[in-house]
Amino acid sequence: MAYKKENDTSFTLGAFPTMELLRKKPEKVKKIYLHKDLTKSEDIEKIINLAQKYNIVCETNSHLIENISKKDNVYIVAEFEKYIDKIDKNNQIVLYNPSDMGNVGTIFRTALGFGFKNIIMIAPCVDYFNPKVIRASMGAVFSLNVVVYDSFEKYVADFPKIDKYLFMLDGNNILQELNVPSTTFALVFGNEASGLPADIKKYGTPVFIRHSNEIDSLNLAISASIAMFKFSK
Amino acid sequence: MAYKKENDTSFTLGAFPTMELLRKKPEKVKKIYLHKDLTKSEDIEKIINLAQKYNIVCETNSHLIENISKKDNVYIVAEFEKYIDKIDKNNQIVLYNPSDMGNVGTIFRTALGFGFKNIIMIAPCVDYFNPKVIRASMGAVFSLNVVVYDSFEKYVADFPKIDKYLFMLDGNNILQELNVPSTTFALVFGNEASGLPADIKKYGTPVFIRHSNEIDSLNLAISASIAMFKFSK
Repeated sequence: MAYKKENDTSFTLGAFPTMELLRKKPEKVKKIYLHKDLTKSEDIEKIINLAQKYNIVCETNSHLIENISKKDNVYIVAEFEKYIDKIDKNNQIVLYNPSDMGNVGTIFRTALGFGFKNIIMIAPCVDYFNPKVIRASMGAVFSLNVVVYDSFEKYVADFPKIDKYLFMLDGNNILQELNVPSTTFALVFGNEASGLPADIKKYGTPVFIRHSNEIDSLNLAISASIAMFKFSK
Repeated sequence: MAYKKENDTSFTLGAFPTMELLRKKPEKVKKIYLHKDLTKSEDIEKIINLAQKYNIVCETNSHLIENISKKDNVYIVAEFEKYIDKIDKNNQIVLYNPSDMGNVGTIFRTALGFGFKNIIMIAPCVDYFNPKVIRASMGAVFSLNVVVYDSFEKYVADFPKIDKYLFMLDGNNILQELNVPSTTFALVFGNEASGLPADIKKYGTPVFIRHSNEIDSLNLAISASIAMFKFSK
């Protein structure tokens, strides 16, 4: 019973993301599973109390936890129904074909920290309900609006007017010198290995985060976080 | 023959860090190992040519590569002698008890990108010659000066005058509002879970990267990279 992308449900691994899920989407939780070796702590007590409040069953099932989490030291897991989000009218983060689960989770965490709640992913991309992404996000995914589009063109068709800043190694605008816009905007980041395709330059403002030529590029999560820092007020 | 911290030699995994090693520290390379399934590419040709130039033996040894790299798809590896660096008079990055190899490697890569070449680590800390750190750094470690100190106090004794900026969740200076100093400075970051100890506040300026209270903290590599971005000119 390992997690699969096609499943209707997914899992939070460990106390921190489980607590975030219970706080933000309690109505989606189906069951909480406890490992037989779980030692009760203040956090665990809080989770069990919240589960009681929402009439969520807590069941001891070490086998399921070990199956879902593989080698990690995980002692509490929640199973929840996947759900569909909607983007609101605020600023957006667009991830074009992101392929690394750790990067996507880390970007979610930073996005929530800097007040960016709308995340658009262009497929093919990481499954953002994968337990590893949820864990890397420290549960931030439950506070964000995440939507997947089939193509960048379909995304542009839905949001034609928002100012799009395209982060590219050959961007002719330097982030360090850029004035942050007062209008609504989207920050767009490419795939870890291949970046953004050149032909989407026409949709926005290409931006380069200036760095020395001693490195090829910055890591994706690092680039996105620096850009969010700069663009957040 | 897996890598161990006590060994006198370590390994680069894959073409990219192997090329960086050959460019920056050719005199430290002992041997290059090729996997029997290696497909020759332009990068591999460059590595083999550089090895010939420096009289470094290239040997086919798939077993060793599989042992060192475990499950990763690695087809070329260089073995090199570990060496000791010295800190120069420029700005410093100080990592206090960092425990995650991916974070340390990512910080090295960003540091090189933003021109910070002096890295000080306070033990206990990640072994920065571990092949996983080297790989996460994309070989940046070979262009940096990395030095380990037993304690923060010993580091302060060696560099009493440099301005130290201490990144802490209860820092009373906000990074977003800070003026970047024109003097030489050190940016100091704590452990992933526990941060910096309160009692080192007396040695410098405590700084907080302002973020919403919807997250507990930013990831260590993200915090360090945002700070380097802000402090680099």
